Amino acid sequence: MLETDYYSEELHGPHQYFELGAFELQTGLTLPNAKLAYKTHGWLNEAKDNAILFTHMYSGTPRDMETRFVGEGRPLDPSQYFIILPGQFGNGFSSSPSNTPVPDDRGAFPKVMIGDDVRAQHRLVTEVFGISELQLVLGWSMGAEQTYEWAVRYPDMVKRAAPFAGTAKTTPHCDMFVRMHEDVIKSDPGWNNGFYKDRRDVRLGLLRHAQVWSVMGATQELYRREAWRDAGFSSLDDFNHRFWEAWFLPMDPNDLLCMAWKWRHGDVSLHTGGDLAAALDRIKAKTFVMPFSGDMFFPVQDHVEEQALIPNSELRVIESLWGHFTMFCMTEADRQAIDNNLRDLLARPV
Amino acid sequence: MLETDYYSEELHGPHQYFELGAFELQTGLTLPNAKLAYKTHGWLNEAKDNAILFTHMYSGTPRDMETRFVGEGRPLDPSQYFIILPGQFGNGFSSSPSNTPVPDDRGAFPKVMIGDDVRAQHRLVTEVFGISELQLVLGWSMGAEQTYEWAVRYPDMVKRAAPFAGTAKTTPHCDMFVRMHEDVIKSDPGWNNGFYKDRRDVRLGLLRHAQVWSVMGATQELYRREAWRDAGFSSLDDFNHRFWEAWFLPMDPNDLLCMAWKWRHGDVSLHTGGDLAAALDRIKAKTFVMPFSGDMFFPVQDHVEEQALIPNSELRVIESLWGHFTMFCMTEADRQAIDNNLRDLLARPV
Repeated sequence: MLETDYYSEELHGPHQYFELGAFELQTGLTLPNAKLAYKTHGWLNEAKDNAILFTHMYSGTPRDMETRFVGEGRPLDPSQYFIILPGQFGNGFSSSPSNTPVPDDRGAFPKVMIGDDVRAQHRLVTEVFGISELQLVLGWSMGAEQTYEWAVRYPDMVKRAAPFAGTAKTTPHCDMFVRMHEDVIKSDPGWNNGFYKDRRDVRLGLLRHAQVWSVMGATQELYRREAWRDAGFSSLDDFNHRFWEAWFLPMDPNDLLCMAWKWRHGDVSLHTGGDLAAALDRIKAKTFVMPFSGDMFFPVQDHVEEQALIPNSELRVIESLWGHFTMFCMTEADRQAIDNNLRDLLARPV
Repeated sequence: MLETDYYSEELHGPHQYFELGAFELQTGLTLPNAKLAYKTHGWLNEAKDNAILFTHMYSGTPRDMETRFVGEGRPLDPSQYFIILPGQFGNGFSSSPSNTPVPDDRGAFPKVMIGDDVRAQHRLVTEVFGISELQLVLGWSMGAEQTYEWAVRYPDMVKRAAPFAGTAKTTPHCDMFVRMHEDVIKSDPGWNNGFYKDRRDVRLGLLRHAQVWSVMGATQELYRREAWRDAGFSSLDDFNHRFWEAWFLPMDPNDLLCMAWKWRHGDVSLHTGGDLAAALDRIKAKTFVMPFSGDMFFPVQDHVEEQALIPNSELRVIESLWGHFTMFCMTEADRQAIDNNLRDLLARPV
């Protein structure tokens, strides 16, 4: 990766950009010349009622969901739906520490919250496309946070919601887990409070960050059964190196830190003075709450408790050895389980 | 703690010391003037058949098991049994990086294995006390590793075995987890390859080490329910600071690293050319295998698979929100569950 910029269209495909102008953030700071990178698939129909919004997770870009879930004959079929995949702030394409000019660059990039992403996405959806209802909003992990924020903030717009392996309000344990990610990145003296010259100067911090994911990102059962072999890895070292390290090492440390802070502060109850039940009660969407069994940082029980507070919802646990990373579709069974649930949900009348 | 040495009798109570002389380690290196610190409770009877050996866990000393489990009217009753609590190498009292003179001090302390501990303990038991059978060998976590090593290495001596939340062979996932502990301690530049002047120079490394424990040492459910309140903590920060950090921060980094390396390399199948089933089949002790539900680094399933290979054994899962730290007896229910199992086991004829 020495000569290739990780955040390039060569690696992530072409994006479109929505210029947000001076964008006031939830913290009160304003980000000048903010931009929202996004992709679309399919065509918006005349009634403008065939749109789906597919948000993405920590460390991801729209590519990661697009390549795994959008396709003809799949539930997210571009011949039927107009599918919008927005990039979250901090992903390296939308406004991020790594692509914002002085004086908001790198370690000086302002804190961004899930609500900021969703307000920007709402502007894209309404101002650019003139859409007033979304057939489905979905996302995994931090994408689930965005999904919940959509369903609570704009309940009349969201017809169906599919949060996978993520919560409407970050739990204290998950907060501690994500703080550990932040702390191990910052543990590298090369991080220099975000003002490193080259992201490779923070290689040790990024390695430690990948190590935390290797220990908690999948299930202990996956390692016990050496089920990584089924995904084409020849040894545990090979898996750790070519899966966890290869995924996280090319990324920008400040971009990851931006998303991590946002992740920790995800909380729809900010709309209701801290009352989570009242916030979730606002949701009008038909909602499938979909945890992954064995997920160590979004345990099934976290979903059970939130789902009980969502009026028109169902709990659908997806069983996999891949834990939180089930959404990577490392097995065909995982892909089918997710597709089947999406197909069911899209077939529900609303 | 600035003026008090953590590894003091003031904090850990009086020890006795067994001088091992020049002790040949499993790796082939010899540790000169090796010593085994230990405590005893009760009296050895004339038949010398009332002895119990109670090993201890990572980061612990005999005090930690003694104060929680030894007492009149308890299963480990010193009026009935002669209870020996050996300190493992690296615990700060038995030979350890922190208490061994040049040239084997600090970062130069040789690697020690579980088999070394158990051979030293066997010499203590046979040479000092003339004991030829142990009514019970027990231990938690790394203590379970020592328990299994005893039962496989000296099957005729061990009448009953009680491994709590630990395995006979460290799993690949657990190995990754413990390597993370080693790596976060070493991430502190103050560690200086083990040749720091003062353990407080490695404070950041020790803090990161405590952080990993805070995320994985108990269950997510404990945090979800804020069950730490029942243990007398007023806030999550208070719990993290006064429980996890207070426990680990005063310790010597090299001593922890010595024990961590030993933990990762625990493997009774070293006796049988890598054949775990053959090694466990050697066990003659009546064995209760006792995992703690929700333990993130010794999951119940790891115990299920090993227990199935132990001839005269039972699986006894202990349910608790405290996960791996159930053995700390933070609730009276945990203490009683452990005591009840020990009482049952000691009542079994052998």
